[in-house]
Amino acid sequence: MAEGVEWALHSCLNLSWMDVPVPAARLAAYFDLPAPYLNKQLQALARAGIVASTPGPRGGFRLDRAPAAITLLDVVVAIEGPEPAFRCTEILRGSPFGDPKGNYLDGCVVSAAMSRAELSWRRELAATTVADLAGDVERTYPGSADQSRDWLAAARA
Amino acid sequence: MAEGVEWALHSCLNLSWMDVPVPAARLAAYFDLPAPYLNKQLQALARAGIVASTPGPRGGFRLDRAPAAITLLDVVVAIEGPEPAFRCTEILRGSPFGDPKGNYLDGCVVSAAMSRAELSWRRELAATTVADLAGDVERTYPGSADQSRDWLAAARA
Repeated sequence: MAEGVEWALHSCLNLSWMDVPVPAARLAAYFDLPAPYLNKQLQALARAGIVASTPGPRGGFRLDRAPAAITLLDVVVAIEGPEPAFRCTEILRGSPFGDPKGNYLDGCVVSAAMSRAELSWRRELAATTVADLAGDVERTYPGSADQSRDWLAAARA
Repeated sequence: MAEGVEWALHSCLNLSWMDVPVPAARLAAYFDLPAPYLNKQLQALARAGIVASTPGPRGGFRLDRAPAAITLLDVVVAIEGPEPAFRCTEILRGSPFGDPKGNYLDGCVVSAAMSRAELSWRRELAATTVADLAGDVERTYPGSADQSRDWLAAARA
């Protein structure tokens, strides 16, 4: 999985505390990341309807849905695409007993077992939202959300 | 995940039916795969103690453990390595409030949430063995294991 997933998750988490849009460059500075690369991830989140950007000198990115309506799976899929980690290439089709027209995606026991594991991973990611992460941070590191919010908003003071 | 995982899982499954070693070239022919690439995966399985090879004209690969003692996770880790799919780069360390010596692998809520999902995936893979897959095939496709065994052994007739 590309590091863009980590950047995107942390961006969503920090945006969940903001009541003003945050420019990509300011978010990038917060994480000490190259702004063009972070911007690319933010654009992917925008295409998925997770964030929205407003133009102009006071513009930037904000969450486009409630934090409780954004699951970790939403973010992972926005960045990595919907393809499963294990891609069945249906190698049985090429075997001496393979049916060139057979559907080995559904019929193959290896593919089915790998899909079950993938489903378990997706189910776990779908069960956690950005609001859950924010709650974890607020409980575990009291005051840190306010600190981040103030820093990210400071540029516009 | 690389397609080597699919090749390795199918190789283990087919080897579980064999009572003679199978040359890499014969297995590769069975799956219509390039022999040098499949051989590379088989060598990785050998390094993990999942298969063993015997040299000589009647040599080849065989499982080095009982099929019930080889989990899908063993095979995935042998091919892909032990690293998690989500690699936390501890980006919080670079934030304005980051501790350069902090342990963000354990302390970060994003990393923790992604690890929980990964664990769920690994747990599922660890709960299924090559013997389980073989049982699934034998139940779902009666006779197909015998067919494969005969074809793979035929080269040495």
